[in-house]
Amino acid sequence: MTADGNFFENFRVGETFRHATPRTVTEGDAALYIGLTGARTPLHSSTPFAQSLGYRSRTTDDLLAFHIAFGKTVTDVSLNAVANLGYAEGRFIEPVYAGDTLRAESTVIGLRQNSSGKSGVVWVRSRAFNQMEREVLSWARWVMVTKADATAPAPEPVVPELAPVVAAEDLAIPPFLRLQDYDAAAAGSRRMWEDFHEGERIDHAAGMTVDDPDHTLATRLYQNSARVHFDALAMQHTQFGKRLMYGGHVISVCRALAFEGLENALTIAAINAGTHCNPTFGGDTLYAQSHVLECWELPERNDLGALRLRLIGIKNLAAAELDSPKINVDGKAAYHPNVVLDLDYTVLMPRKRVLN
Amino acid sequence: MTADGNFFENFRVGETFRHATPRTVTEGDAALYIGLTGARTPLHSSTPFAQSLGYRSRTTDDLLAFHIAFGKTVTDVSLNAVANLGYAEGRFIEPVYAGDTLRAESTVIGLRQNSSGKSGVVWVRSRAFNQMEREVLSWARWVMVTKADATAPAPEPVVPELAPVVAAEDLAIPPFLRLQDYDAAAAGSRRMWEDFHEGERIDHAAGMTVDDPDHTLATRLYQNSARVHFDALAMQHTQFGKRLMYGGHVISVCRALAFEGLENALTIAAINAGTHCNPTFGGDTLYAQSHVLECWELPERNDLGALRLRLIGIKNLAAAELDSPKINVDGKAAYHPNVVLDLDYTVLMPRKRVLN
Amino acid sequence: MTADGNFFENFRVGETFRHATPRTVTEGDAALYIGLTGARTPLHSSTPFAQSLGYRSRTTDDLLAFHIAFGKTVTDVSLNAVANLGYAEGRFIEPVYAGDTLRAESTVIGLRQNSSGKSGVVWVRSRAFNQMEREVLSWARWVMVTKADATAPAPEPVVPELAPVVAAEDLAIPPFLRLQDYDAAAAGSRRMWEDFHEGERIDHAAGMTVDDPDHTLATRLYQNSARVHFDALAMQHTQFGKRLMYGGHVISVCRALAFEGLENALTIAAINAGTHCNPTFGGDTLYAQSHVLECWELPERNDLGALRLRLIGIKNLAAAELDSPKINVDGKAAYHPNVVLDLDYTVLMPRKRVLN
Repeated sequence: MTADGNFFENFRVGETFRHATPRTVTEGDAALYIGLTGARTPLHSSTPFAQSLGYRSRTTDDLLAFHIAFGKTVTDVSLNAVANLGYAEGRFIEPVYAGDTLRAESTVIGLRQNSSGKSGVVWVRSRAFNQMEREVLSWARWVMVTKADATAPAPEPVVPELAPVVAAEDLAIPPFLRLQDYDAAAAGSRRMWEDFHEGERIDHAAGMTVDDPDHTLATRLYQNSARVHFDALAMQHTQFGKRLMYGGHVISVCRALAFEGLENALTIAAINAGTHCNPTFGGDTLYAQSHVLECWELPERNDLGALRLRLIGIKNLAAAELDSPKINVDGKAAYHPNVVLDLDYTVLMPRKRVLN
Repeated sequence: MTADGNFFENFRVGETFRHATPRTVTEGDAALYIGLTGARTPLHSSTPFAQSLGYRSRTTDDLLAFHIAFGKTVTDVSLNAVANLGYAEGRFIEPVYAGDTLRAESTVIGLRQNSSGKSGVVWVRSRAFNQMEREVLSWARWVMVTKADATAPAPEPVVPELAPVVAAEDLAIPPFLRLQDYDAAAAGSRRMWEDFHEGERIDHAAGMTVDDPDHTLATRLYQNSARVHFDALAMQHTQFGKRLMYGGHVISVCRALAFEGLENALTIAAINAGTHCNPTFGGDTLYAQSHVLECWELPERNDLGALRLRLIGIKNLAAAELDSPKINVDGKAAYHPNVVLDLDYTVLMPRKRVLN
Repeated sequence: MTADGNFFENFRVGETFRHATPRTVTEGDAALYIGLTGARTPLHSSTPFAQSLGYRSRTTDDLLAFHIAFGKTVTDVSLNAVANLGYAEGRFIEPVYAGDTLRAESTVIGLRQNSSGKSGVVWVRSRAFNQMEREVLSWARWVMVTKADATAPAPEPVVPELAPVVAAEDLAIPPFLRLQDYDAAAAGSRRMWEDFHEGERIDHAAGMTVDDPDHTLATRLYQNSARVHFDALAMQHTQFGKRLMYGGHVISVCRALAFEGLENALTIAAINAGTHCNPTFGGDTLYAQSHVLECWELPERNDLGALRLRLIGIKNLAAAELDSPKINVDGKAAYHPNVVLDLDYTVLMPRKRVLN
């Protein structure tokens, strides 16, 4: 029997995994990603548009690069994870172009055994590098991992401090980014950074039914080896009874559904926090709601701002019909059973002055 | 709630929409298109074959380019369409190569409110341009669009005159096209232009079952945002009860099924007329019948002719079993309930003299 | 009605078919292949990894190239095949790079009518060439083909002698292949050629459920025109009652499932023999078992060895639960009903001395 990945007792704080299978990302991946999500972000769709902003060519979708890098971490970090608990400090540092090759590594930054003694929480910081060894992405995540041997001793608990939000001054703004030729018509809207206000909520009208072959195709494209997404037979014997959709693909579909209303969101600059609140399965129809959390000016840029957004992914209920992502359950706030994603992220958006 | 596109009363004759999201078309799109349709047209399949005819490289499938350009028009033109009524004057003007970027615009050329007062017909002429601002494709179509406000006044009716057929002299023949090295073995048949005769019918033997994940993947690849194709939950409350297959994908699948018997059809030069006669759904099996309508010599070319063909797309009935696309219903000719597509189009085909 | 391919009585020993539709293989095909299989072989995944070994760039997956070449042979050889009986003498001769164009030809090397008089076995040797007319792949296969006319006379029986195994000295080792910079961490394992021993069995833990849209997408990508894979309506009237999965896609999925445990298998050098033991259908979950048949040193290479492996593909039963691919049925050894593939193939694998 082939190895089954690491169990909780195998992790050591400070240990670094250099993950397997570097991956050359190509125009083929970009096409398939559009096919899987319907994404229409102009920076990822059109090379002339990207070049008008100073990029070499259109860039690989931020989330496609993230999923490919993330997928590499699974074999070492989360093959025995029973839950993906959260994300923090996600930073999109350099653009990824077709032809770039990504590799990833992860360092264990925290460990805490659960009171049951049967599992524990593992915190890792993962980083992705391109073929020039430049860091293109980094993020922290924590997962609950089972123990192979329940009698293995508990490690000294180490719980890392993670920033609740990637601050405006820590966002990687491409130094070459110039907006004087910004083409809002290409994006499809003249609604710019100043047109959003904190507390605003956008109910995105579009919905997308995701079938099993869609999410499995996506997850294989990301070379993510987590078996819960692929093996329907083995999943029959779990609480779910069927294949589980990769949460990252839920993020991608919901981000694409949120395009209308946020057309001028240029690129994702940070993932501040994220939770997969409920499982998603093939056949579910996804909808998206966006909440504007903060509107930031950016240092030394009067042509560009940032929006901190909360993306709520919803299954089988139109966005306009969800009053609030959380409901009162026995006096406690809990996620609405149709909410599958709660993602706090930051996008860059041009300001009104770039409009001609 | 995000905007829901234009309603009938929003359109004005003469108005031009510059559609959003230019799209760089790549080898990735070409591969996925082959995966989605099984297309085997040699000009789109092989770069050496294309180069032997004077092309720079293999070209993007005519219909892939069409669907991508068409998809851009949906958000402005047909998000509130209740029916796609017809196509005319479709011209394939310049080849599209991997790396080209397509953008589209549409001008309203006709408007006529329906007698019910609740909707109306909108005629548009759409044009697609590459990154050098050269026109690569154009077509007219008309759709029935609902009114948001039934009391909005009816516009002055304007019904454009559209040619029933793109004439031989209006076909865009690539000036560089040379056929002295034509390789009929690469195409797989020695049946050339002279071997077809008007009135001939070809029952293509191949059939293809199209599942929901197939047509939704295709339609997202085309960045077509029409919600009827994607949102199974919302579609439950319509007359169809389920997701509707994008009619353009039906054209593509039927064109691919019609490959055997028309192997030397080099490229599509025109779409003369087209009707989606009945809806197609995931799970339907498609078949194709070709009727040879006209065989045209081409000006100043003794090596190349044109065939005007009628492509009948059929669901759940083998082509040989369909006697006629139309049947008598209460004394009137109506489409057979299994006929889903009636497409009148023109292809270029080498003449016998090019055979070695 | 379009032609229905060749029947048994149409074949002549010595006849060569030059198959239709050359195909330019691109990064788009490579991406889709990863999406369809989840393959993680580093030589096919990463250009820097491939270049560190002397290759020009990452190469097209061995099996993707095989399936594309194979697909071309179907229209002439096996459109009327009732069974794909076996493979032998498969050789992977030159790497295929993105941008290469493959064409294929097949020569009839054997014929033997069945005693029933209604069908017969056809042996062909097929060869694939790139755009420089260099042979990149070759293989023999034999299929049972029906007769259109049962009264057609039986041909003189010719049964070719085929080698049971492609010998070590006949393997095509790329002359430029250098392993002094071999990066085992990129592959994800330090288990090298010396770590395997004859008779060893590896139960690969991963399983993959393959839905109908997965295998039809793959088979269309390969431009394989065999109708049994696509036409669910016609298949209702066969013994199977539904679409049959292309056996080549079963090979690909099982090879990808067998990655864990064989991470340092660089490339496939030969297919010695192969049988599709039982049919596979959409919805089946596939698992893989590897048996190490032989461990070969290679002439003039102390840095590289070959492993002759037997890849057992299993449906709906985990690899660890299959005791043996064959069971006793009425005193005779027969394939276990869950075994769908028995493939004897040879891979190249670096030796321990390349580890740093």
